[in-house]
Amino acid sequence: MRNLLIAQSGGPTSAINATLVGIFTAGYLSNKIEKIYGSINGIEGVFKKNIIDLREKIKIPTDLDILSQTPAAALGSCRYKIQKAEELKKVINIFREYNIGYFLYIGGNDSMDTVEKLSKYCKNKKIEDIKIIGIPKTIDNDLEVTDHCPGFGSAAKYIATIFREIERDSKVYSKTGVTIIEVMGRNAGWLTSASILANSEETEGPDFIYLPEVDFSVENFIEDLKNKLKEKKCLIVAISEGIKDKSGKYISEYSRICKQDEFGHKYIAGAGKYLEAVIGEKIGCRVRAIEINLLQRCSAHLQSGTDIKEAKLLGMKGIFGALEGKTGIMVALKRKEGKYYDIDIEYIDISQIANKEKKVPLSWINKQGNFVTNEMEEYLRPLISGEIKNVYDGELLKYITLY
Amino acid sequence: MRNLLIAQSGGPTSAINATLVGIFTAGYLSNKIEKIYGSINGIEGVFKKNIIDLREKIKIPTDLDILSQTPAAALGSCRYKIQKAEELKKVINIFREYNIGYFLYIGGNDSMDTVEKLSKYCKNKKIEDIKIIGIPKTIDNDLEVTDHCPGFGSAAKYIATIFREIERDSKVYSKTGVTIIEVMGRNAGWLTSASILANSEETEGPDFIYLPEVDFSVENFIEDLKNKLKEKKCLIVAISEGIKDKSGKYISEYSRICKQDEFGHKYIAGAGKYLEAVIGEKIGCRVRAIEINLLQRCSAHLQSGTDIKEAKLLGMKGIFGALEGKTGIMVALKRKEGKYYDIDIEYIDISQIANKEKKVPLSWINKQGNFVTNEMEEYLRPLISGEIKNVYDGELLKYITLY
Repeated sequence: MRNLLIAQSGGPTSAINATLVGIFTAGYLSNKIEKIYGSINGIEGVFKKNIIDLREKIKIPTDLDILSQTPAAALGSCRYKIQKAEELKKVINIFREYNIGYFLYIGGNDSMDTVEKLSKYCKNKKIEDIKIIGIPKTIDNDLEVTDHCPGFGSAAKYIATIFREIERDSKVYSKTGVTIIEVMGRNAGWLTSASILANSEETEGPDFIYLPEVDFSVENFIEDLKNKLKEKKCLIVAISEGIKDKSGKYISEYSRICKQDEFGHKYIAGAGKYLEAVIGEKIGCRVRAIEINLLQRCSAHLQSGTDIKEAKLLGMKGIFGALEGKTGIMVALKRKEGKYYDIDIEYIDISQIANKEKKVPLSWINKQGNFVTNEMEEYLRPLISGEIKNVYDGELLKYITLY
Repeated sequence: MRNLLIAQSGGPTSAINATLVGIFTAGYLSNKIEKIYGSINGIEGVFKKNIIDLREKIKIPTDLDILSQTPAAALGSCRYKIQKAEELKKVINIFREYNIGYFLYIGGNDSMDTVEKLSKYCKNKKIEDIKIIGIPKTIDNDLEVTDHCPGFGSAAKYIATIFREIERDSKVYSKTGVTIIEVMGRNAGWLTSASILANSEETEGPDFIYLPEVDFSVENFIEDLKNKLKEKKCLIVAISEGIKDKSGKYISEYSRICKQDEFGHKYIAGAGKYLEAVIGEKIGCRVRAIEINLLQRCSAHLQSGTDIKEAKLLGMKGIFGALEGKTGIMVALKRKEGKYYDIDIEYIDISQIANKEKKVPLSWINKQGNFVTNEMEEYLRPLISGEIKNVYDGELLKYITLY
C-alpha cells in the first residue's frame, strides 16, 4: 500500500479546498491508499518535509463541508517553480521517504509546470511507481484545453453579484457619474468578462468591458464614455487590471511614477485609479474607481454551486486516474454539446497545458473592443449557477484550520 | 382618509429597503391610510413632484422579500439639507396637493435634520394634520440615542466576513506581510470596530484597529507593527478612512498632494494607500492596502437577519406612531438588560438626534488606542446574527425596480 500526497499552489480561490475535499474523499475511500498526507505551502513543504497526516485533521463527514467552504488554500500555498534537476531528485527522494505513490498537485500554470517536470523526470529515470497528477484551479480561467477552471465560477459569481450591487448603489443619486471597477486578470480577460452576467431583468450590467486581449486606447475610452453619457447619466465600466496600450505597456504603469507628497513616498495605483484621474481631467464628471482586490479570489461566502461540485469531482477523478496508473496528466472539464449544461471529465497530457495561457478569443469581443459577445455570456452563465447550503459557527461561516 | 409618503435619503445601506417594506406593509394594513406614495430621490423628489404610487409597483406578498433583499435605496436617494423657510412652505404645499397626512423619512443625520425642520415648521404654523416621522438608517451607526442603526448590522456582518476571508487569503504564503483594510467612517469608528468580529475559533481577527476617535500617530503605528512582526509574520490591520493626527488633519490628506506622472494627473489616495507607502519605506516588508469602498454599504447578498428584522419593525413602528398622532420624532432601538439580546422600540424627540453624531466611547478603545475592548465586541456580536433565505432569479438574487 502506498501513500497519497496532496498540495496546493498559486493564488488561492474559493474552490481550491473543494478540490482538496474531492481528492481526500476518494483517497479515503480507496483500499489501495494508506495514508493521506498534505504538504504545507505547496512544493516548498515537500522540500522542508513540512508534511501532515490529513486523516488526523479532517473528521468524516463533519469536516468535509466545512473544508469545502473555507476560503483560500487550507494547506497554504507557494509561488515556486522548480528550476534544477537536483531539486527534482530531492523531491522524489522525499516521496520515497514518505512512501508516496500518488502526488496530486492543485494549481494553475506554474503548478502544472511542476507536474510536467516531475513526471518527465520519473519517466526518464524509469520511476513507474509514483504517479504525478495535476488538478486545475485558477480564478483567471487561463488554463488550456479544459473548458474552464475550478475557482473561476465562484469568482465570476462574485463579480456578477458585486457589479449588480454597485450598479444599484451608483444609481441612487440623480447625478451624472462614472464608476470604474477593476477586476483581476493580467493577461486574460475571462474574469472581467464575467461582469456581463450582472445584466439581468432588474439591472443593466456594465456599459463597457475592456480586456487585456485588445489594445487599450485612452482616447477611444474617453470617446466611448462621452458618447454614452449623452444617453445615460450613470455609467459602470469593467476593466481588467492588465489592460495595455498598443505599445504593450500596462495602463497601470502610467501611474507608477507617481511619487511624491511632501515626504517623497511612492504610490502605486492601478489602471482604474489612473483612468479615474484621466476622466476627472477630460470629462470632469463624478468618477470613482473601485479595485476589488483580494475579495474576488477569497469570497467563499458566495461560492457557485456548479463550481464547487466540479472542483470536488475533478479532485476525485484525479485519484481514479492515479489508481488506474496514469501520470503526467491534468484532469480537465469538457463541455458537452446540447441545450443543457453538462460536462465530461477527461485526462489531458500535461505538456498540452503547462506554461500555456488561454486568452479570450477575439471573436468573443466586439469590433470596438469595448464589450463581449453573446457567446461569452452563454459560455459563462452556467458556471455561476447554484448556491451552497453553508455551515455556520454562530454568526459566521465555520472554517477549518489544517496547520 | 389621508395618504402616506415615504422617502429615502443619504448613503444607501443593505437594510434601507427592509425599512421601506416595514413602512409599506403597515401602511397597507391600516384602514386609515389610502394611497402609499414614494418620493424619488428623497426630499428632492418632493420638490420636483417626482412621486410614485407604490401600491402599483409592489405586489403583495411576492415583492416584499424581493424589495427587502434589493441593495441600495430602491426609491433613490439625495444629499440635500433644507436651508430656507420657503422650501419648508413649498414642501407642505406639495404635501397638501397630494393629501399627505404622514411623511416617513428614512435616513441618517441630514435626513433627521429635515424631519426636525419640517415638524418645527408645522408646529409653528399650527399644522396638526401632517405627521413627520424619521426612521434611522446608516452603516456608520452614528445616530444618537438609538442603541444602533438599521443598516449597520449588515455592514458589520460584511466587514466581519471579508476580514476573515482576507485573513485566510493573506496567510497562505510563508512570507512576512502586512494587510491594511480601510473601512468607511469619517468621524465614527463603529464599522471599523466590527472587524473585531472576525476573531473566531478558526481565525485570529485583526491585529490592530485604529479609529477616528483617537489621534493617530504614524510613528506609533510603525512601532506597533514592528513589535508585532517580532511575534508573527502576517498582520491584518483595520483602519477607519477618517483617522486623523493630533493636529486634526486626516491621514488621507497627506497623500492628496500626490500629483503627477508624466501627464500631470492628480491622484487621490486614501489613508490605507498612504500608510502602505509609509510601511514600504519604514519597514520594507510586503504590504497591501485594501479599500473596500462601496461594497461595504451595498452588499445585500450578506444581510444580517437581525438587522433586516429590526429595519422592518422600525418602519412599521413609524406608521403606528404616525397613526397615534406622533410627529417630530424618530423611532429608536433600546437594548434591554439581560443575558440574551432583546430590544424595545421607542419614540425619541427628533431634537435629541438631528445634527448630532454618536462616536465610539473612549472607554471602549484600549489605552494604546490601537484596539477595541470586550465591551465593544459584546455590543456588536448580536447585531450580525442570523441569515436571510434569499429569493433567486436564475443564478443571482432577484431585485425590484420601483422607478
